[in-house]
Amino acid sequence: MLELQSYAAGRWVGPDAGARVMRSAITGEPVARGGAALDFAAMIGHATRVGGPALRAMDFHQRARLIKALAQALDARKEELYALNPLTGATRADGWIDIDGGIGTMFVFASKGRREMVEGQIHLDGGLEQLSRKGTFLGQHVAVPLQGVAVQINAFNFPVWGMLEKLAPALLAGVPSIVKPATATAYLAEAAVRILVDSGLLPEGAVQLAIGGTGDLLDRLGPQDVVSFTGSADTAFALRSNPTLLRRGTRFIAEQDSLNASILGPDVTPDAPEFDLFVKEAAREMTTKAGQKCTAIRRMIVPARLMDPVAEALSARLAQTRIGDPRLETTRMGALVGLDQKADVEARLAAFAEEVTPVFTGDTLTIEADHPGAGAFQKPSLYRCTDPDSATRVHEIEAFGPSATLMPYRDLPHAARLANRGGGSLVVSVITHDPAVARSLVQEAGPWHGRIYVNDRDAMAEATGHGSPLPHMTHGGPGRAGGGEELGGIRGVMHYMQRVAVQGSPRMLAAITGQWVPGAPTVPPPTHPFQLTFDEIAIGHSIVTEAREVTLADIEHFAHFTGDTFYAHMDEAAAAANPFFPGRVAHGYLLLSFAAGLFVQPDPGPVLANTGLNGLSFRKPVSPGDRVHVRLTAKRKTRRTDSYGEVRWGVTLYNQDDDPVADYELLTMVSYSR
Amino acid sequence: MLELQSYAAGRWVGPDAGARVMRSAITGEPVARGGAALDFAAMIGHATRVGGPALRAMDFHQRARLIKALAQALDARKEELYALNPLTGATRADGWIDIDGGIGTMFVFASKGRREMVEGQIHLDGGLEQLSRKGTFLGQHVAVPLQGVAVQINAFNFPVWGMLEKLAPALLAGVPSIVKPATATAYLAEAAVRILVDSGLLPEGAVQLAIGGTGDLLDRLGPQDVVSFTGSADTAFALRSNPTLLRRGTRFIAEQDSLNASILGPDVTPDAPEFDLFVKEAAREMTTKAGQKCTAIRRMIVPARLMDPVAEALSARLAQTRIGDPRLETTRMGALVGLDQKADVEARLAAFAEEVTPVFTGDTLTIEADHPGAGAFQKPSLYRCTDPDSATRVHEIEAFGPSATLMPYRDLPHAARLANRGGGSLVVSVITHDPAVARSLVQEAGPWHGRIYVNDRDAMAEATGHGSPLPHMTHGGPGRAGGGEELGGIRGVMHYMQRVAVQGSPRMLAAITGQWVPGAPTVPPPTHPFQLTFDEIAIGHSIVTEAREVTLADIEHFAHFTGDTFYAHMDEAAAAANPFFPGRVAHGYLLLSFAAGLFVQPDPGPVLANTGLNGLSFRKPVSPGDRVHVRLTAKRKTRRTDSYGEVRWGVTLYNQDDDPVADYELLTMVSYSR
Repeated sequence: MLELQSYAAGRWVGPDAGARVMRSAITGEPVARGGAALDFAAMIGHATRVGGPALRAMDFHQRARLIKALAQALDARKEELYALNPLTGATRADGWIDIDGGIGTMFVFASKGRREMVEGQIHLDGGLEQLSRKGTFLGQHVAVPLQGVAVQINAFNFPVWGMLEKLAPALLAGVPSIVKPATATAYLAEAAVRILVDSGLLPEGAVQLAIGGTGDLLDRLGPQDVVSFTGSADTAFALRSNPTLLRRGTRFIAEQDSLNASILGPDVTPDAPEFDLFVKEAAREMTTKAGQKCTAIRRMIVPARLMDPVAEALSARLAQTRIGDPRLETTRMGALVGLDQKADVEARLAAFAEEVTPVFTGDTLTIEADHPGAGAFQKPSLYRCTDPDSATRVHEIEAFGPSATLMPYRDLPHAARLANRGGGSLVVSVITHDPAVARSLVQEAGPWHGRIYVNDRDAMAEATGHGSPLPHMTHGGPGRAGGGEELGGIRGVMHYMQRVAVQGSPRMLAAITGQWVPGAPTVPPPTHPFQLTFDEIAIGHSIVTEAREVTLADIEHFAHFTGDTFYAHMDEAAAAANPFFPGRVAHGYLLLSFAAGLFVQPDPGPVLANTGLNGLSFRKPVSPGDRVHVRLTAKRKTRRTDSYGEVRWGVTLYNQDDDPVADYELLTMVSYSR
Repeated sequence: MLELQSYAAGRWVGPDAGARVMRSAITGEPVARGGAALDFAAMIGHATRVGGPALRAMDFHQRARLIKALAQALDARKEELYALNPLTGATRADGWIDIDGGIGTMFVFASKGRREMVEGQIHLDGGLEQLSRKGTFLGQHVAVPLQGVAVQINAFNFPVWGMLEKLAPALLAGVPSIVKPATATAYLAEAAVRILVDSGLLPEGAVQLAIGGTGDLLDRLGPQDVVSFTGSADTAFALRSNPTLLRRGTRFIAEQDSLNASILGPDVTPDAPEFDLFVKEAAREMTTKAGQKCTAIRRMIVPARLMDPVAEALSARLAQTRIGDPRLETTRMGALVGLDQKADVEARLAAFAEEVTPVFTGDTLTIEADHPGAGAFQKPSLYRCTDPDSATRVHEIEAFGPSATLMPYRDLPHAARLANRGGGSLVVSVITHDPAVARSLVQEAGPWHGRIYVNDRDAMAEATGHGSPLPHMTHGGPGRAGGGEELGGIRGVMHYMQRVAVQGSPRMLAAITGQWVPGAPTVPPPTHPFQLTFDEIAIGHSIVTEAREVTLADIEHFAHFTGDTFYAHMDEAAAAANPFFPGRVAHGYLLLSFAAGLFVQPDPGPVLANTGLNGLSFRKPVSPGDRVHVRLTAKRKTRRTDSYGEVRWGVTLYNQDDDPVADYELLTMVSYSR
């Protein structure tokens, strides 16, 4: 029997006399015991006084690299997790979602942290806001890490993924976590945390583990803390009603299981690829993880005329389900997490039995296990609800196991109304090949759903499945689904940060954001900036070039050389008739090219390449005889590899009257050495 | 006496027997009565069945134009509002914040709606997410309007601005509102709603007004509804504890008054411009609107050595306050909203009196009014708290009137800790000329504040004031300040929309977003797309050009013509030593220029001008002898003026192996006519 320990204030502790026993989902035998009376005040103190400052001392890219290294540490020892996985009733394929899925989520956050956040400690949220006419007072939204602790209360079904999908964004934000796994599968969460701690990578206090009850933990939280909960609607309601949390404004994010639906498009015929796809996805959602997924399809909404064909095809598919001991290679569906869960599922099925009739009961299936009666095996069951408008319970009561209900719809608005009857769901899938169907459902059912998964013959080879939350996309849903949101890339990181609207002069905003802002002071570099290494380039280094006249001959020459003989450059009368031009004007690309000619230093040096540009805006036409000059200012620096980093430059072209005629951001790669 | 009416389900109703009387702040005389028993079920039904569908039938740009027209309607009749304004105790300058400030907020939302949202009904949130290797399955976050009602519960102090700053984002989102003004100043809110309704611009059901209590309104709300509350922490707590809202997941946004602070930087000396600026802003925040602003400075945190000079200078300034009847041109500070409020302020001042000593009491000031005793006049009062670390009440109890407390700090971390003792505030200002001070406070105090206002000699001429929320910037704060957020441009609109993570094939995403997505089908246009009008151009119209060889002669010629003789283009050995290049390569701008030469149609036609480009990325070097061709695809169309609109094109350059070598988004303006 495994003796599970909590990781509290830097020490592994427990189990103590109050520990609880966890049983195997497949044999019912005790496999682990865990739980101890924890000093939550000390744990919070450790998180906020040790873990928080250590994480906040790192910048976003350092935290992203930490997350990547942690993911690698887990990946190297993941077979230890797979060894425990069958005890939860899960097959290896189910475990892949949990274990490799969790590790993959960390890799995505590590990557997005480096690509989408600055190499600094203050995240930029959106762009500059022009708050004044002359530009001496500007606005910029930023985000900074909360100074409290993230309390993560996880569900039993994905002990690894469920933990890592919350840990990764909290770590990236710079906020320490106290992880509270569900007791039933805490042994798997404990094993994962042990790998993280063993790695020696985590700053002390950054992650703690609390096996057992939450005690007085929530009553000790305040405005800088976040409770992130995954589980049932009832538990979420109890937690979010906590007056301490409400009074102090503790952030509360809930992700609740919901009555997710899948809609088969009205365009689909029984011989279309989408018909088979619908049946395949539906069967997969029912049987993966024995249906214990908060995103699983509970309601299948199909055109009335297709009710019988779908019932038949889906029943035939379900009849192939090999259910049994998840350690057997032949098993496709394992067990529920335990006998309590099995009883709960059966009670809930009974609760809406009056509104449905059975279509497939699984009676023909045998359970391939040594002692099938001892495990929490549950056969898949499919129902039909012929009057889903009158029915209520089938839209409200979720049996968290391998079961679902078919219901007919008349037209698309009816299908959306039925999906919305779930009262807010994590996901609705739409299997259709008609884009108008997808668009209509996004508008009609979107307000009630956190995610809409559209699948068809074009996407099916690469589609990731109705039930898979991806780290790139938000995961959560309104109403019944908890009203929360997790993941979604940097959106998920924001839950652990405070957005701050910063207002001030360009000089102040430049210092705060770590990037040059138009109007902020500039400094002449000691030599041409293209001859400076990445480290030698300072934000605000700025040069102004000589001026160059743009002649009519230049314009004509450029036109004939490039083939761009657009009339605005070639025909005075026609150009003058154009609302944008006073007459013949220089090509925009001629100006860009001349600008580069003016600011480039031709010799080899640390500036290696121009890799792109952003936000080019042509502000004013340049006529023959105008003289242009350029200001080039170092705006932001980001390390990219071991040998070079990216430097972004603000570039503005001016005419002889010092009016800006074009501006853009220039991207270059610059070596760390000469 | 004004007889105020509610606007419910398309009818003006009330007052009835249960109506309440509102009194003049300056004379105590009754000025209005209002309130009636309202059928909230009918009002919600009217909003969701009539108003919501009407608003959702419009696109974001149509709603933005509606908001602009409503702002113009208010502007045309704003003197009617200014005529009522003194009854609230406010001067004309105070009223400007409320009335012109509210109208200005609408103009900003109208403008941002057209600039930052699509001309369509599905808002795009962020960019495409690459969810698959081959790109047949992609992700895009979108946002769609909620199908419920926005219940807006406003505070007494800004009856016009407070209403419009919530109405504008709700209207832009496409969600109908029920406005519940504070009773004390409901006559001003009613007058503003009357102008909006009279304008005839509002779709029926889009805005309703409920004067009086909320009755059973909140108990009738569900997961598609939003309660947006401004007011006291106690009322907010009571509302957010409503089990119906908690159970059903109704969104609740609170913006509560808070103990905002202003910090004088440690760099400031008594002769610095920032010293005077601090005193000036502090005095203004105390006296504007007689201190009845949720953002007003309650705590002034100054370097210990400057306590006396600041106390002296601020007292001298306060001694100049001309307090009295706001209708007098000489008056700089009017009255509190009423005698109840005055009593409340005095009770709260008494509640923290033990922790402070008076610095300025206003005893020397006279109240310039006919019957000063009858009005709710309150003299400004300034206190000093010498031990702000031990003090508790001065950080917790807000006297919502013209008073504030000075407190000393030792060093910057101490200043941040004191500011954070407010337990979460709407705003902290920092008056400093040292950018390191500002940056440090953003990091240390940022997590506890929704806004940080930095002012100094550079910004002061244009800075908008510590206490002014701007529509561009988020307004709200953590903890004590309510944990909510409003405004902030489109961020504020998102509170009334559901974010949906949409996944599907490029073809599906193109249909849903209304813009071409890489991988989505393309169509050959009937003729060169530059010869098509805005309306004739269809999303997905796409052309592939001829190929053009890029010769070494071209590269050399371009280098000498433009002056861009960077070694990567000119020196084979040096170029090959660069990690990005195989040898000499073509200039990026040469490729852009050749691309234009390949895709441009030279004759006059509806495509008027290339106004810019976005997201240019050079993906692969082009060597002498390579042949490039271009694909140009119509990506998105947006009407901009009466005569032309913007067409964005996806442009990709390929080499002879069909590898992409560069891509970008090209912006053009295209005429509606030929």
